[in-house]
Amino acid sequence: MWRDLAPIGRNAESGGYRRFAWTGADADCRSWFRAQTESRGLVYELDRNGNQWAWLGDPTAGDAVVTGSHLDSVPDGGAFDGPLGVVSSFAALDELRGRGVRPDRPLAIVNFGDEEGARFGLACVGSRLTAGQLTAEKAHALRDAEGISLAQAMERAGYDPEAIGPDPERLARIGAFVELHVEQGRALAETPHAVGVASAIWPHGRWRFDFHGEANHAGTTRIEDRRDPMLTYANTVLAARKKARLAGALATFGKVGVEPNGVNAIASLVRGWLDSRAADEETLADVVAEIERAAVERGTRDGVDVRVTRESFTPVVEFAHDLRDELAKLLGGVPVLPTGAGHDAGILSGVIPTAMLFVRNPTGVSHSPAETAAEDDCVAGVTALADVLEGLACR
Amino acid sequence: MWRDLAPIGRNAESGGYRRFAWTGADADCRSWFRAQTESRGLVYELDRNGNQWAWLGDPTAGDAVVTGSHLDSVPDGGAFDGPLGVVSSFAALDELRGRGVRPDRPLAIVNFGDEEGARFGLACVGSRLTAGQLTAEKAHALRDAEGISLAQAMERAGYDPEAIGPDPERLARIGAFVELHVEQGRALAETPHAVGVASAIWPHGRWRFDFHGEANHAGTTRIEDRRDPMLTYANTVLAARKKARLAGALATFGKVGVEPNGVNAIASLVRGWLDSRAADEETLADVVAEIERAAVERGTRDGVDVRVTRESFTPVVEFAHDLRDELAKLLGGVPVLPTGAGHDAGILSGVIPTAMLFVRNPTGVSHSPAETAAEDDCVAGVTALADVLEGLACR
Repeated sequence: MWRDLAPIGRNAESGGYRRFAWTGADADCRSWFRAQTESRGLVYELDRNGNQWAWLGDPTAGDAVVTGSHLDSVPDGGAFDGPLGVVSSFAALDELRGRGVRPDRPLAIVNFGDEEGARFGLACVGSRLTAGQLTAEKAHALRDAEGISLAQAMERAGYDPEAIGPDPERLARIGAFVELHVEQGRALAETPHAVGVASAIWPHGRWRFDFHGEANHAGTTRIEDRRDPMLTYANTVLAARKKARLAGALATFGKVGVEPNGVNAIASLVRGWLDSRAADEETLADVVAEIERAAVERGTRDGVDVRVTRESFTPVVEFAHDLRDELAKLLGGVPVLPTGAGHDAGILSGVIPTAMLFVRNPTGVSHSPAETAAEDDCVAGVTALADVLEGLACR
Repeated sequence: MWRDLAPIGRNAESGGYRRFAWTGADADCRSWFRAQTESRGLVYELDRNGNQWAWLGDPTAGDAVVTGSHLDSVPDGGAFDGPLGVVSSFAALDELRGRGVRPDRPLAIVNFGDEEGARFGLACVGSRLTAGQLTAEKAHALRDAEGISLAQAMERAGYDPEAIGPDPERLARIGAFVELHVEQGRALAETPHAVGVASAIWPHGRWRFDFHGEANHAGTTRIEDRRDPMLTYANTVLAARKKARLAGALATFGKVGVEPNGVNAIASLVRGWLDSRAADEETLADVVAEIERAAVERGTRDGVDVRVTRESFTPVVEFAHDLRDELAKLLGGVPVLPTGAGHDAGILSGVIPTAMLFVRNPTGVSHSPAETAAEDDCVAGVTALADVLEGLACR
């Protein structure tokens, strides 16, 4: 399976993946999913929101056990974030067949569309739409860096943007959703366990900071006449790190846009995106407020106007306790750990019983070509997922 | 003249100009220049480096008096930087004809190509090639942000990149070059004078700072496990301002590139371009060395590797003293002032007697849509340039 999937959307220069929603690379990943489904004689389904499903058993029977993840990537992402969950799902189904298991409940594998939000700026669009957390109207209006709307992008990729929207009927047929994912941190690396169960997802959000100054000539404008937003931005980046460290939270500026972005021109606008997360919502709100305060304070000194827009926010997610405990028991007392990363499982947990399995990541690196997992650990992940599916589907 | 030129390459959203070398906007500016030349019955010439010339009198007679400037722009530049010099040159020729002046020396107007270096990163490409300060080989290899080489760009624009190179014969026919330019600062604004004469151009250069860290997930990577180059960049931006201020110099980061530039990914690479200038070369070297030292020091703390590449450097330019004094005398004791901005006149001053006139800029703003000059001051500039051309050409 990996052999066919590995080259899709891989950038030769960076070695990273660029599988953005509704692009050619995304279409190739979708073809791969469909081919895997059909080669196993599973029933293929495309839902109204462009999520793909592979069914073993009757999709309409209800109380289904669903696993899966996503195939899209961040810019220059790694091979495992998303695809490991999908590949392991197919492998786990193969394993169950090898064991001769006859499930009492329907089983399905899902590939959720646009999980990373790399193109349109909002993560988990496929699952959010399905769960009714995002309206079709708002989704249609999302635009990529080139100004192409999500609706246009879907249409160009051959999908019907008018069809998108909540899908409660589909969700009502699902009894449990379990997503396997490579760990994005080093908690398991410090244990003898290859697999862990998720307890919660930290609340997290994205805030856009617009620093408005005044464009001018870098070679002739006196320092006292400048209104340079790059200075305010720089100070805010350092303040964000400090405030987050003091609060035990995370705050990152990883994306920047500059206008006019010329070597010999003082910027008129610097736009920086803050990603921040914390163990609870109050801490997160405090950290972001402090960063904003620091930005405005410095902006006053620099003659720079600071505007902050919250682009997305995901509250804390506590995974269903009974499902989580059942998984930990099925797997023989593996570690139970929280994560700072958002997932489709986090979106669905508000609607249906949901759980996550993490596979050990030796370096903790993710969202990078250097993201990795040991082969033995991946195999252990498949076995664990097969155990979970068997345990849930045969009772 | 302004009416036809004003709409070319103007971005409707920003109100700024995007006239980059060898683009469609550049071609339109060139057509405008040619039309101005031909409508006046002047002799049109395109030299081997793509610079345009408009001759009054015999181009081969020698000891010519040349004026002119450039028509290209920085990203979202203003209407005056460059075009004011070219428009004023045509207007000054019209004025001389109106006065019934019969010059003893040939007169010419030049439009130097690619002065701002906005597309290929190196300023004054047209005059550098002509003066032999840039080899054809190095020029061919320059690449824009899309990876298109200067040679490819010239070819696509219908020019022959193989023809470029030094043009000593052409320069030998020029007795004096005078460039009129909008002032990029507020020195004249604090005087009663609409026009000034340049004394010198500060030495200046561009340095690319590459900050190499490690891409990782912004939501899951512990602070102590991060190698975030955005922090090192931010600290360097603030250090640059501080070091420059203490030395009475200028240092600006106005252009940034980030990889992968995703909201939820710690950057693997931040690339920042430093523009720095000072009254003398020693001060400039000291300031840049101190900024680099600060970057490396902080990089060590952040686990970020810092590499600095000098992309361009222009030594101090002292304009020819006798020509400068002659101009000041012709104009009746106007102010003589230095500037931090590079110009084609600065390049040519190493080879032929060269001078500059500055027209008052009420705000000092340049390289911005807000760049401006009063109509009366522009007219005074034309009169001053006509006086200078008459004084030099009739003796």
